[in-house]
Amino acid sequence: MTEPTARFLRACCGLPTDRTPIWLMRQAGRYMAEYRALRAQHSMLECIHTPELAAEITLQPIKAFGFDAAIIFSDILPPLAGMGLNLEFVKGEGPVLHNRIETTRDVDMLAVPPAEETMGGTLKAIELAAAELGTTPLIGFAGAPFTLASYAIEGGGTKTYQRVKSFMVREPAAWKRLMNKLVTVQGDYLLKQAKAGAAALQLFDSWAGHALSKQDYVRYVQPYNKALLAALSKAGVPVINFSTGTTPYIEEVAACGGDVIGVDWHLPLDEVWARIGYDQPIQGNLDPIALLAPWRELQTRVDDVLMRANGRSGHIFNLGHGIYKETPVENVQRLVDYVREKPIRDA
Amino acid sequence: MTEPTARFLRACCGLPTDRTPIWLMRQAGRYMAEYRALRAQHSMLECIHTPELAAEITLQPIKAFGFDAAIIFSDILPPLAGMGLNLEFVKGEGPVLHNRIETTRDVDMLAVPPAEETMGGTLKAIELAAAELGTTPLIGFAGAPFTLASYAIEGGGTKTYQRVKSFMVREPAAWKRLMNKLVTVQGDYLLKQAKAGAAALQLFDSWAGHALSKQDYVRYVQPYNKALLAALSKAGVPVINFSTGTTPYIEEVAACGGDVIGVDWHLPLDEVWARIGYDQPIQGNLDPIALLAPWRELQTRVDDVLMRANGRSGHIFNLGHGIYKETPVENVQRLVDYVREKPIRDA
Repeated sequence: MTEPTARFLRACCGLPTDRTPIWLMRQAGRYMAEYRALRAQHSMLECIHTPELAAEITLQPIKAFGFDAAIIFSDILPPLAGMGLNLEFVKGEGPVLHNRIETTRDVDMLAVPPAEETMGGTLKAIELAAAELGTTPLIGFAGAPFTLASYAIEGGGTKTYQRVKSFMVREPAAWKRLMNKLVTVQGDYLLKQAKAGAAALQLFDSWAGHALSKQDYVRYVQPYNKALLAALSKAGVPVINFSTGTTPYIEEVAACGGDVIGVDWHLPLDEVWARIGYDQPIQGNLDPIALLAPWRELQTRVDDVLMRANGRSGHIFNLGHGIYKETPVENVQRLVDYVREKPIRDA
Repeated sequence: MTEPTARFLRACCGLPTDRTPIWLMRQAGRYMAEYRALRAQHSMLECIHTPELAAEITLQPIKAFGFDAAIIFSDILPPLAGMGLNLEFVKGEGPVLHNRIETTRDVDMLAVPPAEETMGGTLKAIELAAAELGTTPLIGFAGAPFTLASYAIEGGGTKTYQRVKSFMVREPAAWKRLMNKLVTVQGDYLLKQAKAGAAALQLFDSWAGHALSKQDYVRYVQPYNKALLAALSKAGVPVINFSTGTTPYIEEVAACGGDVIGVDWHLPLDEVWARIGYDQPIQGNLDPIALLAPWRELQTRVDDVLMRANGRSGHIFNLGHGIYKETPVENVQRLVDYVREKPIRDA
């Protein structure tokens, strides 16, 4: 990589920036009236698979708030549909996979199609959005193998992770085959997102930390995240390794790889950063609940994150998880303005 | 306290034992046919509030497996019903509070009744069960203030904790009043459980760690858990301070007090124990998923917990969370036998 000029990409590489770059997970979403208006006319899957719609949604928060990075509008689950699982977003209930994986044979039946066959809409949307964004970098993304395996085996969301965990401990050989298939599919998909114009990639491991002990993370997740992140080094763009619920063993998460470690809000930013090393760029970690608080409380919490980052190079301001759909847009605007105007120490 | 003779109580006090005491959270529950048979005839709330039924269920796992401690059959939520919330256990959905707390006025409307008025059935059940148990210690329990506040404000279970957290940050004064009311109600209830015959008490803070950052735990939870645990020192019995999802900041949990810290399964036992200090008795921490694994895998995991405890005094073997209802009873029997026959190093 030649040295990038965009603030967000510079921070991904640990390079100094004039101010702290900011974007928010799920910044294109239901808290925005523009998004809700579009979704009133089109289903979730329609928005994802229609390049023009996905590109338009991707641009909405950039036009409204001027974030330092855009993230392609999509969801982590459609690649599972491409592998043969019948995905539906059920209103008020969330995603459901109607033919969830129950047996080792179900694992072997999963297809491993190239991304252009099943996620072509998203790849095209990346081309369109990147062209329109100009100098604002576009982030491509995908779900990490464990998180996808969790949805595939549970058949949707879960609080206990009982099905996925019992499959994992009862059928270790099939688990390996499943995770390797997911590494292949997601690696191919992410590399093609970079090729289509994504200037950075983010891997979302939303559930591993909630579901697994450190020992099980090391045994059942780490080898696959390592393989996937190693494959992504060919992408030629920075990769953000994001997960939630993993602060008890964030060192093991960082050991998987990734140019940037995305952290949740469980621990103060400096505690986590010290543990993974200050030479490792970091993204985070405002609790999204702060955006539902009165401004003074929100400001105090933003100040706390920035104070703990202490003006070090390699910090990307973000939430520690996706923005709540109930977030008032005024708070988002005020947050972005506030971080934008805050002087950085070592600039 | 005079020096106790029961293995479980000795471990609670950090005293040497002949072998590692064992009991399992939710040991009286749906994985047992005897329990399911009773529940087929009586609703959850009927079982809780009928002393003879609650005592019978409490005894079931002791008769079947010979655990080193019994825990009174109840649930953490009925005290909320006593405070004025309309509690229902909806089949397949879990607990629902039909008139959840939405406003600061709702907080002020909550009653603070003495335990004998609203939880008299459980206090009577403790008397009956303790008499029948003989030398096996009986554990009384209650939910910690945050976990109850979470149910009260969310109106049931939640994955995001959005309602309780936004109430907390938007209405700090009402939050304080709510938490203080819960401290009063739960303190009174737990002290009366000890008076009725409970030989130990366990506080369940199931959700604080999942919902809150370290900073918010310190600000919105710790003062109340400290006050409650301080009040319980008058009980004259050991108190177990159990929580889940709190390993990122277990030091702050231990700082709340309690004779024993109950830990979940996220980190290896010795890592957590070293952080809170080996002079602090500890309870845990097998991942309950292990009981769904083949015996060899289960055995390996039990060996790992015991190896990490390293025969130190002050270890109570338990799961890191409640037992799954799908657990085969043979595995429970085998686990208990295995831990019972395992020699302890410094006995």
